[in-house]
Amino acid sequence: MPDASDLDQLSINTIRMLAADAVQKAKSGHPGTPMGAAPTAYTLWQRYLRYDPAAPEWMNRDRFVLSVGHASMLLYSLIHLAGIQGSSESDGTEGRPAVTLDDIKHFRQAQSHTPGHPEYRLTSGVEATTGPLGQGVADSVGMAIAGKWLAATYNRPDLTLFDYNVWVLCSDGDMMEGVASEAASLAAHLKLSNLCWIYDSNRVSIEGYTDLAFSEDVAARFRAYGWNVTTVEDANDLAQLCRAYQTFLDTADRPTFILVHSHIGYGAPKLQDTPKAHSDPMGEEEVAGAKKFFGFPPDGTFVVPDGVPEHFAANMGARGKAAHAAWDKLMAAYRKAHPDLGRQVDAIANGTLPEGWEDALPTFPADPKGMATRDSSGKILNALAQRIPWIVGGAADLAPSTKTTLTFEGAGSFQAPGNGGDYRGRNLHFGVREHAMVAAVNGMALGGLRPYASGFLIFTDYARGAIRLAALMELNVVHIWTHDSIGVGEDGPTHQPIEQLLSLRAIPGMVVLRPADANEASEAWRVVLKLKHRPAAIACSRQPLPTIDRERFAPASGLARGAYVLADPPDGKPSVILIATGSEVSLCLAAWEKLRAEGIAARIVSMPSWELFNEQDQAYRDSVLPPSITARVTVEQASPIGWDRYAGRTGVVLAMRSFGMSAPIAAVLEHFGFTPDKVVEAAKQAMAAN
Amino acid sequence: MPDASDLDQLSINTIRMLAADAVQKAKSGHPGTPMGAAPTAYTLWQRYLRYDPAAPEWMNRDRFVLSVGHASMLLYSLIHLAGIQGSSESDGTEGRPAVTLDDIKHFRQAQSHTPGHPEYRLTSGVEATTGPLGQGVADSVGMAIAGKWLAATYNRPDLTLFDYNVWVLCSDGDMMEGVASEAASLAAHLKLSNLCWIYDSNRVSIEGYTDLAFSEDVAARFRAYGWNVTTVEDANDLAQLCRAYQTFLDTADRPTFILVHSHIGYGAPKLQDTPKAHSDPMGEEEVAGAKKFFGFPPDGTFVVPDGVPEHFAANMGARGKAAHAAWDKLMAAYRKAHPDLGRQVDAIANGTLPEGWEDALPTFPADPKGMATRDSSGKILNALAQRIPWIVGGAADLAPSTKTTLTFEGAGSFQAPGNGGDYRGRNLHFGVREHAMVAAVNGMALGGLRPYASGFLIFTDYARGAIRLAALMELNVVHIWTHDSIGVGEDGPTHQPIEQLLSLRAIPGMVVLRPADANEASEAWRVVLKLKHRPAAIACSRQPLPTIDRERFAPASGLARGAYVLADPPDGKPSVILIATGSEVSLCLAAWEKLRAEGIAARIVSMPSWELFNEQDQAYRDSVLPPSITARVTVEQASPIGWDRYAGRTGVVLAMRSFGMSAPIAAVLEHFGFTPDKVVEAAKQAMAAN
Repeated sequence: MPDASDLDQLSINTIRMLAADAVQKAKSGHPGTPMGAAPTAYTLWQRYLRYDPAAPEWMNRDRFVLSVGHASMLLYSLIHLAGIQGSSESDGTEGRPAVTLDDIKHFRQAQSHTPGHPEYRLTSGVEATTGPLGQGVADSVGMAIAGKWLAATYNRPDLTLFDYNVWVLCSDGDMMEGVASEAASLAAHLKLSNLCWIYDSNRVSIEGYTDLAFSEDVAARFRAYGWNVTTVEDANDLAQLCRAYQTFLDTADRPTFILVHSHIGYGAPKLQDTPKAHSDPMGEEEVAGAKKFFGFPPDGTFVVPDGVPEHFAANMGARGKAAHAAWDKLMAAYRKAHPDLGRQVDAIANGTLPEGWEDALPTFPADPKGMATRDSSGKILNALAQRIPWIVGGAADLAPSTKTTLTFEGAGSFQAPGNGGDYRGRNLHFGVREHAMVAAVNGMALGGLRPYASGFLIFTDYARGAIRLAALMELNVVHIWTHDSIGVGEDGPTHQPIEQLLSLRAIPGMVVLRPADANEASEAWRVVLKLKHRPAAIACSRQPLPTIDRERFAPASGLARGAYVLADPPDGKPSVILIATGSEVSLCLAAWEKLRAEGIAARIVSMPSWELFNEQDQAYRDSVLPPSITARVTVEQASPIGWDRYAGRTGVVLAMRSFGMSAPIAAVLEHFGFTPDKVVEAAKQAMAAN
Repeated sequence: MPDASDLDQLSINTIRMLAADAVQKAKSGHPGTPMGAAPTAYTLWQRYLRYDPAAPEWMNRDRFVLSVGHASMLLYSLIHLAGIQGSSESDGTEGRPAVTLDDIKHFRQAQSHTPGHPEYRLTSGVEATTGPLGQGVADSVGMAIAGKWLAATYNRPDLTLFDYNVWVLCSDGDMMEGVASEAASLAAHLKLSNLCWIYDSNRVSIEGYTDLAFSEDVAARFRAYGWNVTTVEDANDLAQLCRAYQTFLDTADRPTFILVHSHIGYGAPKLQDTPKAHSDPMGEEEVAGAKKFFGFPPDGTFVVPDGVPEHFAANMGARGKAAHAAWDKLMAAYRKAHPDLGRQVDAIANGTLPEGWEDALPTFPADPKGMATRDSSGKILNALAQRIPWIVGGAADLAPSTKTTLTFEGAGSFQAPGNGGDYRGRNLHFGVREHAMVAAVNGMALGGLRPYASGFLIFTDYARGAIRLAALMELNVVHIWTHDSIGVGEDGPTHQPIEQLLSLRAIPGMVVLRPADANEASEAWRVVLKLKHRPAAIACSRQPLPTIDRERFAPASGLARGAYVLADPPDGKPSVILIATGSEVSLCLAAWEKLRAEGIAARIVSMPSWELFNEQDQAYRDSVLPPSITARVTVEQASPIGWDRYAGRTGVVLAMRSFGMSAPIAAVLEHFGFTPDKVVEAAKQAMAAN
């Protein structure tokens, strides 16, 4: 075991002082954890992390996730000292260092690459956006899943392409979050031996010492999940840290949890080990005291002593560079030995899909009986997953209901080998853990897969912390949320979504699609797999929906524009427009027939996606919803909020203004007025108001 | 220990068969858990639960929470056989049994009192709405907190008003949910010895056997939290169950976790112990086979054998009746000995507040510098909590930031005695556990307190499962969500809410208030404490807001109507209306001055609550937003969705169309265009469009 050399100590203290200075200058931020956890992270980076600073996108790099995102200055200091370069995945940093000293001097300022909490795509070297506690640890489980899946799928004898490890630095706050518990339980079940959580236990949180609210035995809890658990008594003991990291590397059958006792604000004369070291600048006096303690010049700020960057280059840098070069040779040999698989690996690296994948999209014949969109979506997903081998996903214990099981030969279950599947499995069983599922799927996307998550729409409520981060990180994840309305029926109001569709639509960047029938479901999948840097949610019905006759009505390809004219009167001159999504489109078609029988000319607009429609040009939008036609009815079995935009001042919004009820679907729809007659009535009302 | 008598066994099997018949007739539901867990619940109710079936609202009753809500037929069978009466808290059931045999025959049908999942207020005897897994267990922690608080606050020597226990039946699914982990950790920290979770472990979930996804050692995990843990090897062993329940009663220093191994679908010839017994009817043949196994008439349905209701009456019924009668006497003595405290207890029972509480509401003088609404709300909360002793609450490790600490003398910390506080404490430290916090606060409201929960608005994302249930249960809870916009500044997009306000507004029944200044904050508290059966969320700013001069502008009491005219041109004839909420109101006031200087007559509408405004009559709404004035600008630093309703077709919606950014507040507001000049520009644009 290496002793802490002077250069090691100097490097560690440089990290500490950069963090203290940056927070002090910004007058905002969290100095305590960077000062306490600096040796922990430093030792990991310098002695173990396999990372080429010149190639932050190298596929087989180790991942380091700072789950304790408020300690962002710890990460920025490391990125800066290690000399990590910008990349095309990180906006505007290609060809320059990811974090310059100037960035650090502009910590938490506009246009810097050092925001308050680490942001993926803004700063190269940041593997995941963190800050909301628990998210980083939960993401890391998905990264480890991706690592295991890639290894099992692509490694060949003597050609080990993938064997990266995922390291996470987390905190007391992470340990308290439910999503972390879910993720920890799942990681142990899956025996993710490539995953190491390093728990920086400084016993301080915002309200005070953690014993105000947190008195469990965390190590025992992780043992109960099935983790390999070890403890480091003092973060300043580098030899102990090395021993712990080595234990992780030596453990092949389970994830490793390292509990590291540390001193928040280490080196600050008065604030060390106190809650006051957690948030906000410590004050000039404390910073000066810490500098004195560490032997730094008292009046210098943002000091990077000679030799420190070179020390990083000589250790982490040189190690990573060599490993990367070796891997490049390996990959070249792999491409020759296994050209098909090599193309797959390259496509994963480039974020592209196999040529011709769209040919796999099924079409469905007209059928008045039809099928639930959860069923059609399941068929489409299965067809696509056979063409795109790195579509991997699952549900939170609801796959038989969400119809998301991949059933083709060889799809298999993603499990530790011998546990009913293996790591090549395409079907993940996330358990009743919605939040960890969505976060893990974020991590899988960060690992290059095209993953999906699934559940009932109502349970998006449990997962919103992670859903939002998918949008903020601009990840290509697909969510399939079924049982998408009061059409759920007997399960009642606890299971009938009302506000969930709207709440998803409100997330910036998110694409929400609610297909009206099987062919719209197919087009929805076409759209979402083509999305670049955007997550998508597909809302599917539990109940069967007629497959619309596309000879008689408009083709489903109109879905790509968010909304389209599905049906019009023969002369193309409607006097009323019915606008609907999902299951309510066929309801409107029934009303349309009734109106036609009464001689009323109606248009039906199927509007599966607000976002995509709002992104069309004005001319298209006006062609679908001509401003001159103000007699409009919108129909969606969900919150009315937002529909005024399309209904206009005199339109009628048919929506849910209360929670649902438990009864068979027909009784529920009747009770809440979602019948053809009510739509006809609303159409007449809208016409009368004009 | 009592042996299982024939009548016990007959009663247990009656519960099983009622559940199987009800699910079969409804063609929908979950028969397996009622059949497996019937002895567990039966033994508890008959031998331990202190509950007077004639008085389901008795304050000192034991609580039984069915966290495994999909096993609702288990609870309905028990309520029916125990003869629990309807109550005024349960709509339409006063003066009749809470669940008739006819209700059971109409399981999951409209207008029955037996919905798919148990619903508080719909069925007397249902202590909490459950179904979304993890919620019941988390609610129960709040119920136990309420029990401890009531006991510590009101019990006097020889006058033990409160000593109820909270019993929960939960499932594999509950154990996997993160919110349950948070709640379990919190319960152990608080040493809630009045809380018993009974874990019905049948090793089956929807996707199959639980070992597909769940292989942790649950008992060890609970020991790690600090629970008293015991195991029952077979749910059919009533003596073992009694031993376990007695262990709970004998444990005074921690909550108790009883792991009960059970057989899902017990008695079904083919389906017992298989995943097929979990959901959906088992089929006539299986039901008939089970009836044969239990010696029930093969062709009878909904059979309640002679003697079973009487057996319930002779045990649970008689015990509960006697205990209740003794308590009534005790309470009468208490009212004499402690008239003031007696009035408080009666007010808690009746859901009323102390007379004159509104006098405690502070008013704030005009002040251009002003204060953050988190600060004013904190002052108001402190004033009210001194007048209303059963306001109890806290934050998820953010009280110093959300300003929700009760600081007056005697407020104290709610902790196990000797742990830095005691059970009379008014300040709860929930830890970094947002979801469990909100659920626990639901449970505290169910226990009669007027509780509050607090955190950053962004973290509502973590707690939505429980926030929704507060609305569905129609609970009087108050949420104080601070840091309510991009005004958060440096913490950046991970901490700047965009879609959260809208997502809260979309929850049916929820009242969302975003006060513009200190006096609106005071009025907001007046409104929310007067709400009956509705939860409320108050969104507060991190940054200081001017305290508006209410001599010059309209009084803040207008808040009660959701929106009001704050400022008008002297002649009352505006040509443009600026509509804003919260921190954007003072922004609009600055713009209003600029417009005035340019000779443009503008009205400012402060709109702290969409919901309250939408509930006003048309005349009032037209007086605030005259249809004739179509030049309008809405300003809110949040999602634009829904503002079209108020802006109208030609209005301008100033809102956030992306995530935020990390920078000091002034830079953030400038970047996203929330400046007086931009508002002026928008006003002119709106006028030009008309």
